[in-house]
Amino acid sequence: MALPTKQSAAPNNPSLLLPSELVDKCVNEKVWIIMKNGHKEFTGTLKGFDVYVNCVLEDAIEYDRDQESGKETTKNLESILLNGNNICMIVPGGERS
Amino acid sequence: MALPTKQSAAPNNPSLLLPSELVDKCVNEKVWIIMKNGHKEFTGTLKGFDVYVNCVLEDAIEYDRDQESGKETTKNLESILLNGNNICMIVPGGERS
Amino acid sequence: MALPTKQSAAPNNPSLLLPSELVDKCVNEKVWIIMKNGHKEFTGTLKGFDVYVNCVLEDAIEYDRDQESGKETTKNLESILLNGNNICMIVPGGERS
Amino acid sequence: MALPTKQSAAPNNPSLLLPSELVDKCVNEKVWIIMKNGHKEFTGTLKGFDVYVNCVLEDAIEYDRDQESGKETTKNLESILLNGNNICMIVPGGERS
Amino acid sequence: MALPTKQSAAPNNPSLLLPSELVDKCVNEKVWIIMKNGHKEFTGTLKGFDVYVNCVLEDAIEYDRDQESGKETTKNLESILLNGNNICMIVPGGERS
Amino acid sequence: MALPTKQSAAPNNPSLLLPSELVDKCVNEKVWIIMKNGHKEFTGTLKGFDVYVNCVLEDAIEYDRDQESGKETTKNLESILLNGNNICMIVPGGERS
Amino acid sequence: MALPTKQSAAPNNPSLLLPSELVDKCVNEKVWIIMKNGHKEFTGTLKGFDVYVNCVLEDAIEYDRDQESGKETTKNLESILLNGNNICMIVPGGERS
Repeated sequence: MALPTKQSAAPNNPSLLLPSELVDKCVNEKVWIIMKNGHKEFTGTLKGFDVYVNCVLEDAIEYDRDQESGKETTKNLESILLNGNNICMIVPGGERS
Repeated sequence: MALPTKQSAAPNNPSLLLPSELVDKCVNEKVWIIMKNGHKEFTGTLKGFDVYVNCVLEDAIEYDRDQESGKETTKNLESILLNGNNICMIVPGGERS
Repeated sequence: MALPTKQSAAPNNPSLLLPSELVDKCVNEKVWIIMKNGHKEFTGTLKGFDVYVNCVLEDAIEYDRDQESGKETTKNLESILLNGNNICMIVPGGERS
Repeated sequence: MALPTKQSAAPNNPSLLLPSELVDKCVNEKVWIIMKNGHKEFTGTLKGFDVYVNCVLEDAIEYDRDQESGKETTKNLESILLNGNNICMIVPGGERS
Repeated sequence: MALPTKQSAAPNNPSLLLPSELVDKCVNEKVWIIMKNGHKEFTGTLKGFDVYVNCVLEDAIEYDRDQESGKETTKNLESILLNGNNICMIVPGGERS
Repeated sequence: MALPTKQSAAPNNPSLLLPSELVDKCVNEKVWIIMKNGHKEFTGTLKGFDVYVNCVLEDAIEYDRDQESGKETTKNLESILLNGNNICMIVPGGERS
Repeated sequence: MALPTKQSAAPNNPSLLLPSELVDKCVNEKVWIIMKNGHKEFTGTLKGFDVYVNCVLEDAIEYDRDQESGKETTKNLESILLNGNNICMIVPGGERS
């Protein structure tokens, strides 16, 4: 969804937390990333990102749930680059619930 | 859908409520967000958003309905960033009906 | 579909009704909106829209047809924001036929 | 598909008919519109369109073929706005063959 | 796929045939167009096109193969406008092989 | 995936081969092109391409594998234009392995 | 996902590793690339890339897992160009885990 000329949410509202600020805060912290396809997730330390929210994760773990059996396999990946286009949700803290 | 040179809806029509204004009004309020894939929904307090309607939610609950069994599972998530591209609908007030 | 340099349809043709004009006319009126996924529809009063045809509806009713059983469920929603990207068709008047 | 710097097709070729010209000629005429999803079609009088080929139809008839049974249902719709993104083909004259 | 700053293929290479040149050559000639969905094809005389390769065909024939039975149905269409977004391949000459 | 301000890969690194350079080298050579849908491939001589990697092939052969039976059918096509949007991979040399 | 005006992640944070920097570091190194469709992967030496992360690989191996049987087939490919649009993840080092 895009908004044309979005007057940013009440800029002087102290409690406001812009998406870019949330991701900024996650740099060098653990994050949990859920991909669009609904069965792939990652945790790891966010080392960097850009305007397309392509994400560099270190000490990453990939969780892949088989859509037929529901069985989940994991992979340890030292460092990875994720295509921001495929990301559905980012959860700061990296604890999968 | 996009409109080329959209003369905004009758600007001097007092009852007009632009999409960006509706989302603005939701900041620091509870919202209910329905995703495009048709089986994932979220409620939570909207802390911020941007021109792509990427949304920062706090004290969020994820509702995920299994497409085979129809069974719904929920997850409590302290704070999350949702990709605006995947959002189908935003309902102010956050009461799921 | 996009046209490069669209000489707008005969501008001096009195009977011409541009898409943006049709949506303009619907503000504060009842509309019926059919979504792309083919099984979700909404009726309600159009309170506002923007160049991406994101739509603010009030006193909205959601109609969702289960693709397996064909059974339709409805939800009353006080006010909603619909992502224009997901809209397939807008019918002024809001009477579902 | 997009072409970078398309020297328009032989501009001085009298028989050339640009897409926008074809749609222009259809204003106030009957058209038959086939949607991308392959099972929805519309006929009606084209009242207007824009650079995204969003189309305003009047006295429209929707033809929807059930993908399981193949059975076709029709709806009469006084006036509608179709999202140009979802249009696959436009046939001037509006006679469904 | 897109290339950022594509130095066009060896411009001084006489045998080079740019995509736009190929389509230009097809104006007023028969073409065979294969759509992305893999089961719809068209032949006809190309009367015009634009930078999005929206195509105007005259004396067109639509070939639609039923994905279950494999049976092919054809339709004669006097003139049509095809959405360039849905085109996968264009074959000059219009002989379906 | 897109990178915002991509400092091109070490420009002074002699072994670097940019995507556009690889495609340039293929002009007038045989190439093997694999499409996104996973079951259509082409070999042929690349006669030209543009910034969207729309490709003109001559003396092309289409290989189409039926997704149910796995059986592969081939078609000889004198010259074709492929929509760059649908291309997944280009292999210089045109030998299908 | 896109961020509007992304104040880059704490620019003065030494440990920051931007996506473009990670890919830069991979030039002339082995990488493991996972495609969006979930069943195609490649390893090989990254020879070059561009702002769309189209990737040139040399001495590449394609791994394709049949979605029905789960059986994996491999192909050796001397040099290939991958469409960045289809890439989901890049893992430096090229060791498939």
